[in-house]
Parts: sequence; C-alpha cells; structure tokens
Amino acid sequence: VINIAIIGYGNLGKGVENAIQENSDINLVGIFTRRILDSVTPMFDSSNVYPIATLKNFKGKIDVCILCGGSKTDILNQAPEILKNFNCVDSFDTHAVLPEYLSQMDAIGKQSKTLSIIAGGWDPGLFSLQRLIFSAFLPTARTHTFWGKGVSQGHTQALKDIKGVKCAVQYTMPNKVAIKMANNGKSVHTTKAHTRLCYVVLDGTAPADIVKQEIVSMPNYFKGFTTLVNFISEQEFNKKHNGKLSHGGMVMQAGTINDKSKTVLKTIIKLNSNPNFTGSVLVALARACYRYVKRGKIGALTMLDIAPVDYSAKPRDILIKELL
Amino acid sequence: VINIAIIGYGNLGKGVENAIQENSDINLVGIFTRRILDSVTPMFDSSNVYPIATLKNFKGKIDVCILCGGSKTDILNQAPEILKNFNCVDSFDTHAVLPEYLSQMDAIGKQSKTLSIIAGGWDPGLFSLQRLIFSAFLPTARTHTFWGKGVSQGHTQALKDIKGVKCAVQYTMPNKVAIKMANNGKSVHTTKAHTRLCYVVLDGTAPADIVKQEIVSMPNYFKGFTTLVNFISEQEFNKKHNGKLSHGGMVMQAGTINDKSKTVLKTIIKLNSNPNFTGSVLVALARACYRYVKRGKIGALTMLDIAPVDYSAKPRDILIKELL
Repeated sequence: VINIAIIGYGNLGKGVENAIQENSDINLVGIFTRRILDSVTPMFDSSNVYPIATLKNFKGKIDVCILCGGSKTDILNQAPEILKNFNCVDSFDTHAVLPEYLSQMDAIGKQSKTLSIIAGGWDPGLFSLQRLIFSAFLPTARTHTFWGKGVSQGHTQALKDIKGVKCAVQYTMPNKVAIKMANNGKSVHTTKAHTRLCYVVLDGTAPADIVKQEIVSMPNYFKGFTTLVNFISEQEFNKKHNGKLSHGGMVMQAGTINDKSKTVLKTIIKLNSNPNFTGSVLVALARACYRYVKRGKIGALTMLDIAPVDYSAKPRDILIKELL
Repeated sequence: VINIAIIGYGNLGKGVENAIQENSDINLVGIFTRRILDSVTPMFDSSNVYPIATLKNFKGKIDVCILCGGSKTDILNQAPEILKNFNCVDSFDTHAVLPEYLSQMDAIGKQSKTLSIIAGGWDPGLFSLQRLIFSAFLPTARTHTFWGKGVSQGHTQALKDIKGVKCAVQYTMPNKVAIKMANNGKSVHTTKAHTRLCYVVLDGTAPADIVKQEIVSMPNYFKGFTTLVNFISEQEFNKKHNGKLSHGGMVMQAGTINDKSKTVLKTIIKLNSNPNFTGSVLVALARACYRYVKRGKIGALTMLDIAPVDYSAKPRDILIKELL
C-alpha cells in the first residue's frame, strides 16, 4: 500500500480524493488544508482532514504528497519546503518558469534525498508524453496541440482582473479549419488555431466598450486571437457558466516519413471533469514516484522521464500479457 | 552517432532504411541479407549490403541490430543467436508466445551482456503504450483497440494456405457501431468490433463454396467475425489489392472516474505505409536501446519499460522546454 497525502483541498484535491477510490493500492493518510478545519467537509467519511501546519508530524507515515494548490503561488511556495521532508508530485503548469522550477526542485530533492515529479496531469502531462512520442516516431512532421472546448483558468483570471468586471469565464475553442490544416501536415500558429470565447458580467464601474477593448488588446492572452466577448447578466452567468469543469483537447502529428508515406497520429481527450481526470493522473504519478524512490531515485523528474509500466497498479508480467 | 544494422530486407527493412534518412544521429552500417547480393538493390546509394553470414565480423562496429524479418520464423530463429553478439530491437508480434520469447531473450541478454527491446512498432508498440497509460489514468474504464482499415498479414497468410486459393488479401475493418458503443463506455468483443473483408483468387483446384466455407469456419481467424468473402479475377487482384501497405487503428478508453465524470481518451493513427511507420518507430527504439546499453542495462525490455525521453534525438532540457 502506498500512503499519500492531499495538500490543498480545492477542485483538484477533491479530484485526487475521488480517484483514490479507484486505486486499491493507494491509501489516503489525510487531506492537509490551510483553511479552518470545521469549514472543510471531505467527500468521503473515511478521509481525515488535518491543518497543513501539522504535516511535519507525519514524516515517515506519508510516501508521497500530492500538491493540489494552484501553480501561480501555492506550489511555488509550498513545494520546495515540503520536498525537504516528503516526496511530492504536482501539476505545476506555468510554462515560462517550468525549467527553472524543475532545477530548483532537483537540487532540493538531491539535498534532502527525496523525489519530486513535477507538471503532472494532462497538459502538461499526458499531452506532453504524446507530443514527445509522436515527434520521436515521426520526427520531421509538425506537432499541433488543440485545446477545448473548455475553460482556461488563466484566461478566466485575466478577465476577472480587469477593472469593471464582476465575474467572467473564458472558453478556449479549437478552430475546425485549423484542425483540418494540421491534419494535412500544414503549420498553423496557435493564435489561428483557437477562438477565445468570453462571457463577462460588468459591475458598472467601467463601460462595456472600454472593457471589451482592454480584453481584445491584452498581449499574450487575447491579442492576435479571434476573441469573442459576450456581456451577460449575473443571473445568466450563474445559470450557464458557473462551476463548469469540462475540458478536452487533441495532440496531432501529421506529415510524411522522408517525403513519402503520409502519416497521421492523434490523441483526443474529452473530460467531463478536468480536475477529476487531472487527479486521476496524479494518483498514477504518485505510484510511479513511490516506485522510483524505492529504487533510490532522488531529485526531480517529469512525466517524460517515467517508464510507463510504473504508472499501473498491475504487475509488469500481467501488463505484458494483457496490453503488449 | 548510433551505428545500426538492418537484418532482413523486405518491406520493413526498407521502412527502416527510409526512416534513417530522417534521423541524423543514426548511421546505417549495412543491410544484412540472406539473399544473393546481386538480387538486392538498396533504396539509397549510400546503403551497403552484406551477406548475413558476415554479420559477426562487424562486432564492435554495430551498436544495435534492427531485426526486420517476420515473426513466425525469422525472428524466433535469428534473434537469440544475434543477441549473443549484438544489441537488438525487433517488431515481434506473435502475441501467444510473447512472454516466453521475452524471458528467453532476457536470459540470453543477461548472459551475453547485451540488450534486446522486443515487440516494437505500432501494435504491439505505440498502441501498447497507449493501452497502458490510458488504463493507468482511467483504471476502471474499458480499453478497446480497433484495427483498420488495413491489411492483416496473418489473416492474409491464413487465406493463402487454403487449398484452391491462388492469391488473397484480408482487410480488417472496424465497425462503426462498435466504436460508438466503446465511446459510450460499453464493452464490445473484438469479434463484434471488426469485419474481415477477403478478396480471393481461385486456382481451380477447389470450388468457391468449399473455399468460402473453409474461410468463414476457420477458428481464431474468421469464425465468430462478420467475414465477407469476394472471389475476384487475378487481373483485378493485381490491379486493386497487390502491395497495399496502408493501415491504421484506434485505442480507446472510455468510462467514468469513480462513477462520475465521463472521460474519453483515444489515439487514432492513419498510415499510408505500415512498414514505413513501423520502421520509423524501430529507429527511435534503437536509439533508446543504445542509451539503455550505455547506462549498463542488459537483458530484454519492451516499449512499456522505456522512458519516453529516450526515444527522441533531442536533449532532455530541450524536450522539457519545447514539449512539456
């Protein structure tokens, strides 16, 4: 049995708690939260909840901590500290600082003799794995990733940060024409491959046309994309857009082998719950982390480094018999 | 530079020779053949051709041999001998004896201090990898594999072995209704998931109805499947069905996470040339084999055991930056 802890109890923490029910070799030691304990009700009666400050008392009782906080601040603050005493897996996804975070965690893990596997989930994660194997097996073809339709947390937050916005949501949607072009081996820039669909509720402190202008001209997030801005009432927002968790996407590699033999490789995922699937991947990643630790591995790794056989609860000989 | 040899020069050997052109870190030492040298013309002027009997003279000059013979007899005969002197990768696909072959090769590799990676390609291979990661990330959902439309070598051979058959081809075709059922998380037996489409040219030594009866009642191969048998002229066969190399298929995992959150994961591939793609995978696998050997690994492995990062020619830090 592998003893794991959930660190942080938002949607992703619940996703991990949910996924553990399907993995009989995983035991939940506890959910560790910053919040007042009385305000936290776990989904399952068997789940214990503890204050995050007591985590250190569980040294030796937890094999792997699954970090379920957000990438922006939680993980960057917590992970280096927690790794000093525990092995960790996380779903860190701030692309620009990933290499830096990886080498920081690698140094701490090597010092503390612990192991961290960073950037788990589906993208980064499952999709990274697909991009890697597709591009290794079809090296001169182009790799495309399409996201959606689904809610982008980062873009939603960017909308909420604009003056005059009360609440908002941003759906990323892949463009059908772009998918067709990629399928034919043509290159499509990510700004032309996606439409950004925004639903915004105003708070009355800024006029709609100013808010709209600020959205469509926001660099990195919306500028260059086809951005559709819809202003709606709070009532409609709460009814149609609040708490949406579905997402999905596609990785596609299409091209030729040495200018011959047209080849298309693609992986498509559809998720009714983004955090539940991410949680399920993190549980498998915690299993792999546990096994690598048993073999003496320390430092920091990514899903690109993990032998697939180590994700599964089943023994290798059964996997070879059933799946090879 | 990784020095490889192609052992056997049929469609797959040509596929490997073709794929090497796209991988600048791979050097082809030579094509080794059982045939009379004058009868073998490589696709590229730079490719050397040698008699298979001279392979041993190249000890120390070849990092990995890529075995391109058939599974039925070639690989089972050649691989154990070659592994005594060289590291090997192969596309062995006789499912029933895979575990036995793996442990035989593992013992030889450990004795000879060489490494073999068996059963590479797309199925077994890329599809095995997808079945493994999909079922680890969504453990209680059902895994389905659909093949086709494409030529099954094994079923084609089974047709050719029947008395009265001059030449034949068998296309495996996935059933749309079955794909829909799998997509909805329902179980479909492989016999109901595929149609077997046969084109047969008779040689006049047996009547059509007897041949047809023998086909549809053949256990393991056709019995239980929807099998369509078309008798055609040799002229039509040569025009429409000779030398068809296209293939494809899909791995799908559809279900829920702990009875919630419907989730669908699928990988679809379309190949204009089955051997060219298989050859391209084997080249990446030879690279991984070379790297595992450098780290001291001996024995026998499968694609389930290989860290994905080792398939790619690019350095790990670039892969993390570009693909994670």
